[in-house]
Amino acid sequence: MYTVYDFDGSGNGYKVWLLLHFLGEKYERVRVNVLKGETHSDDFLKINPVGKIPALVLEDGRALPESNAIMHYLAEGTPWLPDDRFAHAQVLSWTYFEQYSHEPNIAVLRFWRHFLEMTPELEAQAPEKEKKSHAALAVMEKQLAYTDWLVGNGPTIADIALYAYTHVADEGGISLADYPGINRWLDRFASLPNYVPITYHD
Amino acid sequence: MYTVYDFDGSGNGYKVWLLLHFLGEKYERVRVNVLKGETHSDDFLKINPVGKIPALVLEDGRALPESNAIMHYLAEGTPWLPDDRFAHAQVLSWTYFEQYSHEPNIAVLRFWRHFLEMTPELEAQAPEKEKKSHAALAVMEKQLAYTDWLVGNGPTIADIALYAYTHVADEGGISLADYPGINRWLDRFASLPNYVPITYHD
Repeated sequence: MYTVYDFDGSGNGYKVWLLLHFLGEKYERVRVNVLKGETHSDDFLKINPVGKIPALVLEDGRALPESNAIMHYLAEGTPWLPDDRFAHAQVLSWTYFEQYSHEPNIAVLRFWRHFLEMTPELEAQAPEKEKKSHAALAVMEKQLAYTDWLVGNGPTIADIALYAYTHVADEGGISLADYPGINRWLDRFASLPNYVPITYHD
Repeated sequence: MYTVYDFDGSGNGYKVWLLLHFLGEKYERVRVNVLKGETHSDDFLKINPVGKIPALVLEDGRALPESNAIMHYLAEGTPWLPDDRFAHAQVLSWTYFEQYSHEPNIAVLRFWRHFLEMTPELEAQAPEKEKKSHAALAVMEKQLAYTDWLVGNGPTIADIALYAYTHVADEGGISLADYPGINRWLDRFASLPNYVPITYHD
């Protein structure tokens, strides 16, 4: 059985156990309280020296950090990660886009506004992050206005990676009203068999 | 033959054509001037809707963005990307670390200080990025103090991903003096057969 180190409400953690739900795999979720600094305890740093959730621990004790690398590990050989070399790379391309251009804006605004108390210092940085959030959503819309899924004809870990924080963007003050393709895709995604919401409790 | 869309001095671009050198593959390099906004031209946005270099274009015209996804595409089936499922995921884990915790600090400071004119506004953001740069280097040192390469017994695309901006960190004002493991690894890397420096011109 897998162990997933996670924090309730984290989109990055959600990616991992949502994929495990889709795959029908068993897992145990261990909560690490980011807000209390528990990701920087000596014990947790042995699991992930970067001091971030999520991390996946295998039955033999080996630990793997980084949500998208964990999804790659779990999805290999399943329809969630295409075998075709180019499609496979396209899936990865979306996940790097997610970590570089999407998450640092959309997820960080949500973290500030939904989990922290906003300070004037954070508020001063918000407009730049709002601008970049909409730039990232515009890139997704360019694809999802024309196709059902980000890559190919079915859902992949690219869709999970981008769904995780897009569907709760409003919690960071980012409106999705102007992105009809994204909204259709969000509905399509939430209708998948074995889907569970980010608020799911095991 | 591959076409690599790149900007001279970009570590993300360097990753791609350095790997092509290591693999002995032929490529053409097309310069896209980031400083003149050429990555946001209509023509370039057709290649990468995100408006960033590098991008790889295959002989059949298909385009792939994101340096680490491109390296995954090129390295599959070579020693630069392990077949073993867990080692493979560990390599990816380092590349996500690079894009989230390393590049936005070390590469961005270098871009500001080496390619742009520093403004008081950028200077005010520098201390936070310096702190995060050293946190990322400390994570690398924790590994490279004990092993020759980031994953397994030989160089992989994880090493290329982290080498690209680490070896020019001083151009962003980040000293590597306190990281003996990283320094040994940089020397080891630059001694690899077919290595070419970031200043290489085809």
